[in-house]
Amino acid sequence: MKIDIDPAKIERLLTRGVMEVIEKDHLRKQLLSGKQLRIKLGFDPTGAKIHIGRAIVLRKLREFQDLGHTVVFIVGDATALIGDPSDKLDKRPRLTTEKIKENIKNYKAQVAKIVNLRKAEFVFNSSWLKKLSFLEGIELARSFTVNQMLARRNFSERLEKHGKIGLEEMSYPLMQGYDSVMVKADVELGGFDQLFNLKAGRVIQERFGKPPQDIAMTEMLEGTDGRKMSTSWGNVINITDEPNDMFGKVMSVKDELIPKYFELCTDVSKEEVAKLSAHPKERKLYLAHEIVKLYHGEKAADEAKAAWEAQFSRGEMPADIPEIKFTVSKINLIDLLIETHCAQSKSEARRIVEQGGVRINGERKTNASEEITLNKETLIQVGPRKYVRVIPR
Amino acid sequence: MKIDIDPAKIERLLTRGVMEVIEKDHLRKQLLSGKQLRIKLGFDPTGAKIHIGRAIVLRKLREFQDLGHTVVFIVGDATALIGDPSDKLDKRPRLTTEKIKENIKNYKAQVAKIVNLRKAEFVFNSSWLKKLSFLEGIELARSFTVNQMLARRNFSERLEKHGKIGLEEMSYPLMQGYDSVMVKADVELGGFDQLFNLKAGRVIQERFGKPPQDIAMTEMLEGTDGRKMSTSWGNVINITDEPNDMFGKVMSVKDELIPKYFELCTDVSKEEVAKLSAHPKERKLYLAHEIVKLYHGEKAADEAKAAWEAQFSRGEMPADIPEIKFTVSKINLIDLLIETHCAQSKSEARRIVEQGGVRINGERKTNASEEITLNKETLIQVGPRKYVRVIPR
Repeated sequence: MKIDIDPAKIERLLTRGVMEVIEKDHLRKQLLSGKQLRIKLGFDPTGAKIHIGRAIVLRKLREFQDLGHTVVFIVGDATALIGDPSDKLDKRPRLTTEKIKENIKNYKAQVAKIVNLRKAEFVFNSSWLKKLSFLEGIELARSFTVNQMLARRNFSERLEKHGKIGLEEMSYPLMQGYDSVMVKADVELGGFDQLFNLKAGRVIQERFGKPPQDIAMTEMLEGTDGRKMSTSWGNVINITDEPNDMFGKVMSVKDELIPKYFELCTDVSKEEVAKLSAHPKERKLYLAHEIVKLYHGEKAADEAKAAWEAQFSRGEMPADIPEIKFTVSKINLIDLLIETHCAQSKSEARRIVEQGGVRINGERKTNASEEITLNKETLIQVGPRKYVRVIPR
Repeated sequence: MKIDIDPAKIERLLTRGVMEVIEKDHLRKQLLSGKQLRIKLGFDPTGAKIHIGRAIVLRKLREFQDLGHTVVFIVGDATALIGDPSDKLDKRPRLTTEKIKENIKNYKAQVAKIVNLRKAEFVFNSSWLKKLSFLEGIELARSFTVNQMLARRNFSERLEKHGKIGLEEMSYPLMQGYDSVMVKADVELGGFDQLFNLKAGRVIQERFGKPPQDIAMTEMLEGTDGRKMSTSWGNVINITDEPNDMFGKVMSVKDELIPKYFELCTDVSKEEVAKLSAHPKERKLYLAHEIVKLYHGEKAADEAKAAWEAQFSRGEMPADIPEIKFTVSKINLIDLLIETHCAQSKSEARRIVEQGGVRINGERKTNASEEITLNKETLIQVGPRKYVRVIPR
């Protein structure tokens, strides 16, 4: 395959969405040399959905692929049995072999949206780690001190909080580093939280007399609310989200994050972004359309945009509002929200009301204990997108 | 072989020179059961001479052997390549395979003075550790946390002093514990500094569904001067020391250590010790005779005692005093000691004089700057055993 050595593309590859490259000059020279490089990305088959934050590194892989380089996915099926301590403060539970298989299938289906899997290698690190002897492993361990390990942020924080660090967790960088030797990695990609493990690859490659890999660490993306993107905080946009849902979530992104989302989650250039309307809503409409287009195609993006605008911009309501028949003629607002399944609990109902998220027949209600009279058809609106129609029997 | 279950012998085994037994009741029951037990002692083939402090655990092994139990020596040829961190604050240098072989030969020759090697098993832990895979090793590691490792005295002290702990050192208790599984140890012996590793055996045996070994930790013996017995402090009595030398060293033991030396280094009972003369010198003569007898036999002990008494008790001088011809007729005491090779440096000479260790023609000299007149044959005595005769030309 012909390697593309276009300096502009290489510069974009080295900078857009990239936090740090070790060693940048060396990697640039490699990319300009016309040599086909081997680009490594490891992943733990934990079954997690891929969100657009995690997709950044995959999109970077695709850029390498588009220049003609070889992408090598390392399935950490050996390491997953231990659990990577990099991005968690607690010890992870172990995975069964069955579960790992299922998770890999699931991961591939998601990754296929970004990377050309037909041109990528997919290798299991158990295939060589199974053959490694314990005494050879100890030789690898000689490359590191316990002091270095404990200086890692996630370990030092756990120790400070008197949390436990399993002795087996110390073996993770050894394995990840050995993987780099076995796949002859020229470059390894990862997030900044992987810094220690990425560097371990360099150390262990040199121990085996191999040239050390370059490292490209991608940027981290905040969730829609500006906090760390995390499923448990509900601020995540997954790449498998349905078009309308994905579109709506992007529209809820905080305005100040718009430039970062453009940079990390789309291919739109800075120049193009600069030409867009200055109005945040207009910019977000463009952003949402771009992101949905990436994962679902242009037609789906157009439709999602139209649906969103129909619902919100023009004040139209969705066509299929659920109807609930009701016999009580007077009811407390909180109880009404629960009875109509607009809230799960009294405390949730109270919170929604107090945040100004509830309208009755178009009128915002902020007093949670208000009595509502249901003597005629009544439209309840909760948040921007949920409607229920109450009809007296 | 018939197992001796004499309760008195068993009680002696469990207590004499023993700091702690885990679990004592269980071990007593085992010993009384008549079952032949497997008694494990690991050693690192570091080539060290065995001193009478290290011999305590070997003498305890012999007691087990005399009751009919099987002694199993584990040669830590795999672990020695790493270096056991238990008794050192610094990282140990590694050993070569050649050096290990030589050291084992040397160790066996010494141990044969105490243990019946024909009835003991001698196994190399590399024989099973070579077959252990890295991933199996990680399974072993799951039994421990880094927190537990770092709580070990020798590690925590090193960390406090910002000393390095090699990651490979973490594997030591895993290996020692796995050894216990492989040799089906019922009991493991060791010093108190080995507590963590000895307990690791119990943990790992249970992980393999085996009954956990009992542990017997022997007492530590101070050197002749009361400090920790250490070759670098010159307060060591090695079991290979020549009879006269060994005898003299025992005679230099601090008086207050006499009971402990009797308990840990001889078979003399408390009752017999109580019957001895109350005079420290008399007790030490008996002690020295006992110790020399253990390692060199009764005849050598008798001769060493006679030689010592001839030289010191009756004021007799050794037959072969070196003679030095001298031309200077007047000389400073310090210079005299250096010229006659009785001291290596002025500071050493001054120290010996000030400690009252120097006699000129039988007269103790305590003023280091005194002028000595050498107009006739002069006898210099330094310490209890060194003589030089100075003869004017």
